[in-house]
Amino acid sequence: FRQGFPEVIFGANKTPEQIAGIFNHLVTQNQTVLATRVTPEAATEVCGLVPEAKHDPAGKTLLYKPDTYHLKNQTKKIGVICAGTSDIPVAREAEVTIEAMGHVCESFYDIGVAGIHRLFAQLEEIQSCDVLIVVAGMEGALPSVVGGLVSVPLIAVPTSVGYGTHLNGITSLLSMLNTCASGVTVVNIDNGFGAGYAASLMLRV
Amino acid sequence: FRQGFPEVIFGANKTPEQIAGIFNHLVTQNQTVLATRVTPEAATEVCGLVPEAKHDPAGKTLLYKPDTYHLKNQTKKIGVICAGTSDIPVAREAEVTIEAMGHVCESFYDIGVAGIHRLFAQLEEIQSCDVLIVVAGMEGALPSVVGGLVSVPLIAVPTSVGYGTHLNGITSLLSMLNTCASGVTVVNIDNGFGAGYAASLMLRV
Amino acid sequence: FRQGFPEVIFGANKTPEQIAGIFNHLVTQNQTVLATRVTPEAATEVCGLVPEAKHDPAGKTLLYKPDTYHLKNQTKKIGVICAGTSDIPVAREAEVTIEAMGHVCESFYDIGVAGIHRLFAQLEEIQSCDVLIVVAGMEGALPSVVGGLVSVPLIAVPTSVGYGTHLNGITSLLSMLNTCASGVTVVNIDNGFGAGYAASLMLRV
Amino acid sequence: FRQGFPEVIFGANKTPEQIAGIFNHLVTQNQTVLATRVTPEAATEVCGLVPEAKHDPAGKTLLYKPDTYHLKNQTKKIGVICAGTSDIPVAREAEVTIEAMGHVCESFYDIGVAGIHRLFAQLEEIQSCDVLIVVAGMEGALPSVVGGLVSVPLIAVPTSVGYGTHLNGITSLLSMLNTCASGVTVVNIDNGFGAGYAASLMLRV
Amino acid sequence: FRQGFPEVIFGANKTPEQIAGIFNHLVTQNQTVLATRVTPEAATEVCGLVPEAKHDPAGKTLLYKPDTYHLKNQTKKIGVICAGTSDIPVAREAEVTIEAMGHVCESFYDIGVAGIHRLFAQLEEIQSCDVLIVVAGMEGALPSVVGGLVSVPLIAVPTSVGYGTHLNGITSLLSMLNTCASGVTVVNIDNGFGAGYAASLMLRV
Amino acid sequence: FRQGFPEVIFGANKTPEQIAGIFNHLVTQNQTVLATRVTPEAATEVCGLVPEAKHDPAGKTLLYKPDTYHLKNQTKKIGVICAGTSDIPVAREAEVTIEAMGHVCESFYDIGVAGIHRLFAQLEEIQSCDVLIVVAGMEGALPSVVGGLVSVPLIAVPTSVGYGTHLNGITSLLSMLNTCASGVTVVNIDNGFGAGYAASLMLRV
Amino acid sequence: FRQGFPEVIFGANKTPEQIAGIFNHLVTQNQTVLATRVTPEAATEVCGLVPEAKHDPAGKTLLYKPDTYHLKNQTKKIGVICAGTSDIPVAREAEVTIEAMGHVCESFYDIGVAGIHRLFAQLEEIQSCDVLIVVAGMEGALPSVVGGLVSVPLIAVPTSVGYGTHLNGITSLLSMLNTCASGVTVVNIDNGFGAGYAASLMLRV
Amino acid sequence: FRQGFPEVIFGANKTPEQIAGIFNHLVTQNQTVLATRVTPEAATEVCGLVPEAKHDPAGKTLLYKPDTYHLKNQTKKIGVICAGTSDIPVAREAEVTIEAMGHVCESFYDIGVAGIHRLFAQLEEIQSCDVLIVVAGMEGALPSVVGGLVSVPLIAVPTSVGYGTHLNGITSLLSMLNTCASGVTVVNIDNGFGAGYAASLMLRV
Ligand SMILES: Nc1ncnc2c1ncn2[C@@H]1O[C@H](COP(=O)(O)O)[C@@H](O)[C@H]1O
Ligand SMILES: Nc1ncnc2c1ncn2[C@@H]1O[C@H](COP(=O)(O)O)[C@@H](O)[C@H]1O
Ligand SMILES: Nc1ncnc2c1ncn2[C@@H]1O[C@H](COP(=O)(O)O)[C@@H](O)[C@H]1O
Ligand SMILES: Nc1ncnc2c1ncn2[C@@H]1O[C@H](COP(=O)(O)O)[C@@H](O)[C@H]1O
Ligand SMILES: [Mg+2]
Ligand SMILES: [Mg+2]
Ligand SMILES: [Mg+2]
Ligand SMILES: [Mg+2]
Ligand SMILES: [Mg+2]
Ligand SMILES: [Mg+2]
Ligand SMILES: [Mg+2]
Ligand SMILES: [Mg+2]
Repeated sequence: FRQGFPEVIFGANKTPEQIAGIFNHLVTQNQTVLATRVTPEAATEVCGLVPEAKHDPAGKTLLYKPDTYHLKNQTKKIGVICAGTSDIPVAREAEVTIEAMGHVCESFYDIGVAGIHRLFAQLEEIQSCDVLIVVAGMEGALPSVVGGLVSVPLIAVPTSVGYGTHLNGITSLLSMLNTCASGVTVVNIDNGFGAGYAASLMLRV
Repeated sequence: FRQGFPEVIFGANKTPEQIAGIFNHLVTQNQTVLATRVTPEAATEVCGLVPEAKHDPAGKTLLYKPDTYHLKNQTKKIGVICAGTSDIPVAREAEVTIEAMGHVCESFYDIGVAGIHRLFAQLEEIQSCDVLIVVAGMEGALPSVVGGLVSVPLIAVPTSVGYGTHLNGITSLLSMLNTCASGVTVVNIDNGFGAGYAASLMLRV
Repeated sequence: FRQGFPEVIFGANKTPEQIAGIFNHLVTQNQTVLATRVTPEAATEVCGLVPEAKHDPAGKTLLYKPDTYHLKNQTKKIGVICAGTSDIPVAREAEVTIEAMGHVCESFYDIGVAGIHRLFAQLEEIQSCDVLIVVAGMEGALPSVVGGLVSVPLIAVPTSVGYGTHLNGITSLLSMLNTCASGVTVVNIDNGFGAGYAASLMLRV
Repeated sequence: FRQGFPEVIFGANKTPEQIAGIFNHLVTQNQTVLATRVTPEAATEVCGLVPEAKHDPAGKTLLYKPDTYHLKNQTKKIGVICAGTSDIPVAREAEVTIEAMGHVCESFYDIGVAGIHRLFAQLEEIQSCDVLIVVAGMEGALPSVVGGLVSVPLIAVPTSVGYGTHLNGITSLLSMLNTCASGVTVVNIDNGFGAGYAASLMLRV
Repeated sequence: FRQGFPEVIFGANKTPEQIAGIFNHLVTQNQTVLATRVTPEAATEVCGLVPEAKHDPAGKTLLYKPDTYHLKNQTKKIGVICAGTSDIPVAREAEVTIEAMGHVCESFYDIGVAGIHRLFAQLEEIQSCDVLIVVAGMEGALPSVVGGLVSVPLIAVPTSVGYGTHLNGITSLLSMLNTCASGVTVVNIDNGFGAGYAASLMLRV
Repeated sequence: FRQGFPEVIFGANKTPEQIAGIFNHLVTQNQTVLATRVTPEAATEVCGLVPEAKHDPAGKTLLYKPDTYHLKNQTKKIGVICAGTSDIPVAREAEVTIEAMGHVCESFYDIGVAGIHRLFAQLEEIQSCDVLIVVAGMEGALPSVVGGLVSVPLIAVPTSVGYGTHLNGITSLLSMLNTCASGVTVVNIDNGFGAGYAASLMLRV
Repeated sequence: FRQGFPEVIFGANKTPEQIAGIFNHLVTQNQTVLATRVTPEAATEVCGLVPEAKHDPAGKTLLYKPDTYHLKNQTKKIGVICAGTSDIPVAREAEVTIEAMGHVCESFYDIGVAGIHRLFAQLEEIQSCDVLIVVAGMEGALPSVVGGLVSVPLIAVPTSVGYGTHLNGITSLLSMLNTCASGVTVVNIDNGFGAGYAASLMLRV
Repeated sequence: FRQGFPEVIFGANKTPEQIAGIFNHLVTQNQTVLATRVTPEAATEVCGLVPEAKHDPAGKTLLYKPDTYHLKNQTKKIGVICAGTSDIPVAREAEVTIEAMGHVCESFYDIGVAGIHRLFAQLEEIQSCDVLIVVAGMEGALPSVVGGLVSVPLIAVPTSVGYGTHLNGITSLLSMLNTCASGVTVVNIDNGFGAGYAASLMLRV
């Protein structure tokens, strides 16, 4: 059943050479290949071998799409919402994962809970999405507010952005797990990949 | 957008009288009404007022379905998997929530990670589900194993069943958040309602 | 400098007799007397001795106001906001404390973060307050949203209302300490008294 | 309602170029601009563009005050108390924030709980303040002692100064949240900005 | 080397019969016998068998002193300081332990950190003690303040008196371990026995 | 009883010179010598002095076997199972310890819980082992699954491989301690040495 | 491979009727049946149905041995060591499990770390065991001391016996996981069953 | 009452220049001066200014003793016990503090809990000390064993030496706070200074 799924390399504990070796091998098998958590050095190494690989420095991803790549669904889309500049890398990881899965997403990057007019300004567009990913650090309250305004599945992604009692993301995570809003599920801290992957599966239900 | 959604009462901190009052009021409005975390006393109180309400003692739920109730989807179903007798109340809360949302589910109640043949014995049936809910206490490993064998969205529900370092469910939760399997999202400890609600939304995507 | 302050009895670890003894003694000194965390038994005991004492069963408080009691300020007011029925006892403790301090408050009891229209419905009235107290359990997100819409000091009070990873209020507390909104300070879990006292001091600055 | 408030840049996760870009842009709009958590490199970058910006290396802040800047209140003042050299950066962040808000503060920097005569030596001056900020690491006991000697609002700021079981400030925070003194509220660890901002709002009540 | 030490029974997990059996047996051996954490039922049981045993209901102790009992030292004394009524049981456990060890103590029971004048009112008497035990719940700040005013060994005893983030005494403990004062050592939460025992050993150095 | 046991040096907090000094000294006594947690620099230093020492860079070990070295048992073997590349260093530490103890092991390195067919592909070979060591990071579920399929003692080794809520291995540890499988015992996070040593002792029972 | 293993019922969350039902059913299949964590009520219920079942009230176990029961090994034995009366229930659970597995154990019940002569008094007997189980609450130090004196596998069982910072057994567990002694592995808090089961498997290696 | 006490500088967050400045200033006042947690750079800086200052690189201390320095007591001594090389820095900090206080100590550096013969080999010498300091990382069990063998006050110092679940010393600390031995008190993790200071005060009782 792995048909229609990208091959994914978790780059976090691998050397540039290891990543490049695996990446290139999978490319020669004509598959969609995604690598996450890649350092600039690893990206250089891979792109030397596979010039068609697309590097996203913000999200720390590398994506190779073979000729046979095509969108699995052109009418449904995933909304990716986040608040501040610091959360964008996690949002980007989710977005590139969605692309690797063959789906489409739309980004909403300046939506903060303490400046709620920005959310309302884009609410209609947000409500037109079929699945939502909400990325938030600090108090992690955004999924609760958004969740109360939509009726589609919402995946909340806590980030490690914060300080002091933020405890590297534990605060955002706890907040999301205890949301008053219905329809919210949660993934690990900074796990943009996991959110993008699960959201894509939801589009296929 | 609350059209097509049940009214839900969270019974945990309410008196039997309070629950019965709200429940009855919503029934008179001809809505689907679900109450969770209801004590036997509250159930008696409600059923006295609303004899058509269905009480599930295991899941601690009360459900009222008006004449207008109908299934929203008859071809797709949600699988609800759990391991031991102790996790069943959480699974039941999820199942009654799914019914309240107008969807269909199938139960798999004797699937344990340390007796994996029981999983394989039912794998085909499990793989035919469109969304999965996996309820687990103890080490919380079941979602990882199941998640590796399916390609639909999987909602993992940690339970408070365990002792010592189980920390009232924290261990199961942490385990699920760190799963190696892709496509898994998580809800709060013992939150069968949240899992059933989110799974139902996924069927509607 | 204790002039203009009530005498306060923390009832949590005292017997009805102990509370009644101290309470009565202070009453005979013609002072405003406030007791918090009083059980129904303690309330009965006190009211037997001091029939003028006002018992608030929801907030678990007893208040005695001598003839000399008068409001310290009639133009400024404190807004007390909370979401659900379960948080009301903490809000009540704050409100009775404010009354004991000689100040005025206004309550907003049905303001939830996942049903944000209820906040906007009362926003103007909320914005007319001089200091705000926001009481919240679960994900503790309400202070962030309210804080972004006002420019007065806001005291956030986490409550122990929740389950599972709520950790008896730790989640709400952490959320509030990490708020994106400016002007927010925090007190201990369920500490309605502390919030009411500090808010009253702010009115006197 | 943002009239009368500085624009604030949280420098922690931004490059010198990003900070300088935003800072300069806001300066051209003739606003008071405050940046916190700025590295020496970012300070150099900003001051190259905006020579009138005042850099405080201890507090890691940058402040620009336009011609229109004026004090909002000249009779009330905020006292900023801290114990040791290591806590001074947090105190400085609070003080510069107060200046950015258009208010006045007075510093008390050598006030330790284990050398309490130093507190009494300055008590009268401290009691003349209208709001107090007390910054403390280690056991975080100073707000309790000061709080018992004054009757104005007191904002306690835990710092990350300590070792071993200090847990990067958690100990100081917990201590402050559990204070016996009335009128104390708390902000996040090392959050001098938050304390200065809230204290300024209190002066405006 | 057990000469000169009482026999001690930790009553916490024993039945009244077990405690009475052991207690009586040791009494027949003509030893000083101390039992801690005894329920009223256990006390009744023991006193039935050993009428000379002295029961302290507040401290939950039972003490039997044989004819041969005598004070080991009549010139040195241990000061036992605590703040509120709720901490007194722990202070009492320490005091009875000191008596069992053959030493003398003096109590100071109304010394709070947020009402520091009460400390100064008795400072000279406190400074005349040879070893100090300071018992405190809530923010646990008293040992820091007292420690700064004396130059004898000070044993800090955190208590479980508090609520919310007090975490059953963890906050008081952490505060004491991080004290700025020199000469302070700490025992387990509510461990009055341990403090009394160690203080007595210090008198014998 | 130290006969038949290697001398072990824990290299973590020692300088290359210290390690080389001790290592060489033990070699001159004709003993089996094992050093763990050795940096490349320490390895170079030791191998300069003792060229016969075998350095395993992956497991960070150094092993010297004297002429008298011989296997203690040639019919029984320990299986060492792990999932991903990142866990291999811990598995290697266990394996070299087993060799130092004079026993034999067999490695199974690509056995993941979310790709369970890889486990079944090698199950017979795994079931032929007399003791098992299962090394796992992330959700730490592998010991539960393997433990359900074998009936020999199984030592579970949690690793620090993971991120976010993995908490540097705490999640894997908790998961293993709460396993549903019988016959599983656990060692400290990343403690390959401890697992290899205990497994060797089990072969000798 | 379940041949030669008892059937085990975990009684913790089951009603007396449920336990009795399962127990009786297994007995009719002529198997060794062990139930753990049984309340007195459940024991009465089971013994009513199965009079041959042996109830151990201390260890909260029920054991039924069929005619075919026989010891698997008569030359090797497991030593079960514990310190105080409060730890005995956990030791008993281990011992009955060992009996159910068909093995033999010897108990050492008064071995405390702070009275080490009692350990030495029985050391030779302890050293004659083939596997050791060491049960300890409080600081959990006993496995370290014993482990340094023997060279057989040692299973450490932390118990929940303690108070304050004992954190219901977490302290004992952490202590055991960080032991300096080699050859020690650990099970969950109060898990006598798990220790007895694993020790029995070790005898069969 | 500061007569007879050294001046102490906590070097942890100060620049070499700051330390040297304060150190030199105090030297000119003819006082005993102790600085702890000094880097090699700070030591060089201070010794440049004050050549008579004695630098202990292991303990990271600097000590200056004026002409008037003399021992306060020549008959009593403090024993300082620790297990491994890694704990020695903390032991050294304690020892230099004792010297600064004008007291005498004796070191016992190779006393491990898992090699208990080394303790017994020196027991008589240890029992001749008047106060004991026991420094231990890992499972922190040494104070329990030693405490059971002596009858003088014992100060336990947990260290941050360990890995994985050692949690930077929390495990050793918890173990010590829960000791079964009587007469043990505890200081913060790695706080050799605090232990040496308190032990010195005990000699003066
Ligand atoms: N078991 C449950 N766990 C979490 N949330 C629930 C549960 N049952 C109901 N809820 C939520 O609680 C809301 C109703 O809360 P209340 O108004 O307090 O009765 C519903 O809209 C649901 O979102
Ligand atoms: N030191 C600080 N700690 C916490 N929040 C801050 C701090 N400095 C600025 N902020 C907040 O950060 C906001 C700006 O964030 P940003 O848009 O990321 O620069 C300001 O409006 C403040 O509310
Ligand atoms: N990787 C390891 N993890 C835990 N303990 C170890 C490790 N390597 C060696 N040891 C233990 O450390 C002891 C030697 O410590 P040391 O004397 O400090 O070199 C050995 O006897 C082993 O018990
Ligand atoms: N005291 C215990 N602690 C942990 N696990 C146990 C205990 N007693 C029995 N078990 C496990 O629980 C299983 C039976 O669980 P159940 O089917 O819920 O009765 C057994 O096979 C054992 O693996
Ligand atoms: Mg919604
Ligand atoms: Mg899958
Ligand atoms: Mg605001
Ligand atoms: Mg005050
Ligand atoms: Mg002192
Ligand atoms: Mg097995
Ligand atoms: Mg051993
Ligand atoms: Mg002793």
